[in-house]
Amino acid sequence: MIKARVTVTLKNGVLDPQGKAIEGGLHSLGFEDVASVRQGKVFDMAVDTSDAGQAEKDLAAMCEKLLANTVIENYNVEIIG
Amino acid sequence: MIKARVTVTLKNGVLDPQGKAIEGGLHSLGFEDVASVRQGKVFDMAVDTSDAGQAEKDLAAMCEKLLANTVIENYNVEIIG
Repeated sequence: MIKARVTVTLKNGVLDPQGKAIEGGLHSLGFEDVASVRQGKVFDMAVDTSDAGQAEKDLAAMCEKLLANTVIENYNVEIIG
Repeated sequence: MIKARVTVTLKNGVLDPQGKAIEGGLHSLGFEDVASVRQGKVFDMAVDTSDAGQAEKDLAAMCEKLLANTVIENYNVEIIG
């Protein structure tokens, strides 16, 4: 069983209204020092194989097909163990 | 300017229907080996200070107050630079 963390973040230049709203909320709560917030997604996944290299390739394919919108998002696959 | 990544994930035992739906979608796409998917959130933040220790404390406070629901979620603050 291979465990992995996939992180999907917006590409630079893509507007992030959700992040802006959180930034505004933090300012209202008194955290004036917050200069920017960008929200992304994280997927903690378990893959039923013992081949970490194959798992990494499969996870990249999953990102391309389902987990990320590669027009506006970057993804990163990290094998944890 | 301190950059940090805050990761918010569901605690163990908390049901994750969104993760289950993604798992089902991946199975339908032919990724039969996927054993589990848990979805979380990631916040890439910039804080306008030069004191990394203070920034880390502030970010933990932001998690407690707004970014995470600590009843069902864990959070992790990682100072990137």
